[in-house]
Amino acid sequence: MTSEAITVLGLGNLGRALAEAFVRDGRSVVVWNRSEAKAAGLAATVASSPAEAVAAGGLVVVALLDHQAAQRVLSGVDVRGKALVNLTSGTPDEARELAGWAAESGAEYLHGAVYAVPQTIGTDASSIIYSGSSVVHERWRETLALLGKVTFLGADAGRASGYDVAILSGMYGLLGGFLHAAALARVNGIKAGELTPMLLSWLTDLQPALETFAGEIDAADYAGGESSLAMNQSGLATLIRAAQAQGVPFAALDSLKALVDRQVEGGRGEESFARAVESF
Amino acid sequence: MTSEAITVLGLGNLGRALAEAFVRDGRSVVVWNRSEAKAAGLAATVASSPAEAVAAGGLVVVALLDHQAAQRVLSGVDVRGKALVNLTSGTPDEARELAGWAAESGAEYLHGAVYAVPQTIGTDASSIIYSGSSVVHERWRETLALLGKVTFLGADAGRASGYDVAILSGMYGLLGGFLHAAALARVNGIKAGELTPMLLSWLTDLQPALETFAGEIDAADYAGGESSLAMNQSGLATLIRAAQAQGVPFAALDSLKALVDRQVEGGRGEESFARAVESF
Repeated sequence: MTSEAITVLGLGNLGRALAEAFVRDGRSVVVWNRSEAKAAGLAATVASSPAEAVAAGGLVVVALLDHQAAQRVLSGVDVRGKALVNLTSGTPDEARELAGWAAESGAEYLHGAVYAVPQTIGTDASSIIYSGSSVVHERWRETLALLGKVTFLGADAGRASGYDVAILSGMYGLLGGFLHAAALARVNGIKAGELTPMLLSWLTDLQPALETFAGEIDAADYAGGESSLAMNQSGLATLIRAAQAQGVPFAALDSLKALVDRQVEGGRGEESFARAVESF
Repeated sequence: MTSEAITVLGLGNLGRALAEAFVRDGRSVVVWNRSEAKAAGLAATVASSPAEAVAAGGLVVVALLDHQAAQRVLSGVDVRGKALVNLTSGTPDEARELAGWAAESGAEYLHGAVYAVPQTIGTDASSIIYSGSSVVHERWRETLALLGKVTFLGADAGRASGYDVAILSGMYGLLGGFLHAAALARVNGIKAGELTPMLLSWLTDLQPALETFAGEIDAADYAGGESSLAMNQSGLATLIRAAQAQGVPFAALDSLKALVDRQVEGGRGEESFARAVESF
């Protein structure tokens, strides 16, 4: 059964890397992309339509720009009996919507979120979280493992995207902070290359604090905080003032301070910084 | 000479931890705090004024709430011949201002920024970066090493604070992202304790990308990007839409997207995400 062909819809950076990982394992791969040029040099059969590509494969991996593109490409395609694995980024509700459509259309649907850059697909540095059809997960687990470490999060097709939006938000917080840090360093004559190792070292040291915060949030118990809201309010105020004085303000800091301020104004200044999550 | 007493001005969480680290090493410690109650249980001499405390010590460590408090407490105090080590958070210009005042007042001035929580002062998990007087750094290095790893960044008293505001901005980016991630997870029925290990694992995997970005920023060469501005613009748009749809918008994401948008509008969409630093 694993000799069945694998279909890949979408040959952007991600889709192309997925197709290459299957090809490297000697699999029979059928691809479709809006522009056929993206298939150049790939040892795969190029289908002339999404329908033709889907008809040829048992496992259909979808890696398109966004949910709307995935809907458009799959619309009207006969997916009966297929195992659909959608790695297109989107919201939990969008994943559930496609899962519902797949169920009505006689297909099994698994949604995934990829933690890798295209260059690391198929290596140990690649990890993909999935949720939705356990049938697809069990039947195709070894094949999916060719792309990266497989983590299955249960039957709710939206759950992987729920993790994903949360993880992406954490990532963009870090990336925004990094860019601002580099801008602040620059106006102080400090190279990003000098700053970054010290920043990363400190952020690594902070990881236990984040785990503590997570426990406080889950217990909704913020009494123990060694990093109080009031302390962080003062730290953020100093930082915002410093960034302003140096000509590189960043409104993201004000957004965070507003969360902290609301808790302090509510009389919670001595409680843990983690309580700021209650301001959302 | 190392038998000279050490003065600690300020017994907040940090100051108290600093004084305790000196006491643990058997040093003779003189402390002053606005409220004497904070000195309870500390094996140190409690001075009744900042002037009395400073007169008693060779090394004077300052750990007050902010720059204004440090100015107020030191104002009018005879600091001639003293080694002042100021660990109070502030901007580079504030550090330079106090360094100037110290020079006029006949004292040597070293400014420091602490990377530790009070509980880890004096352990391997504590690191302090310093800049300013190399005389103080050389003369008191071993004593300062009792507090945490010593890194000396040169003669500009503002340099340690320059690093510090940058590192704090990076940290608050991560903390804001973490809080938002926890809020997004919660509305999707995912516990912060389930999310956090996956988030930390992905952020750790991202560290080489940040080092690549740092190199691009220092070279002002953004041509090579494997993570393009356009890709991230699309990712941020999806994320902002998802957060909005789930009732937990966070304006920090919009602030970051505005930096990216400005570069994409300038025709740089295919270049590296790191170019967004040029939007500041």
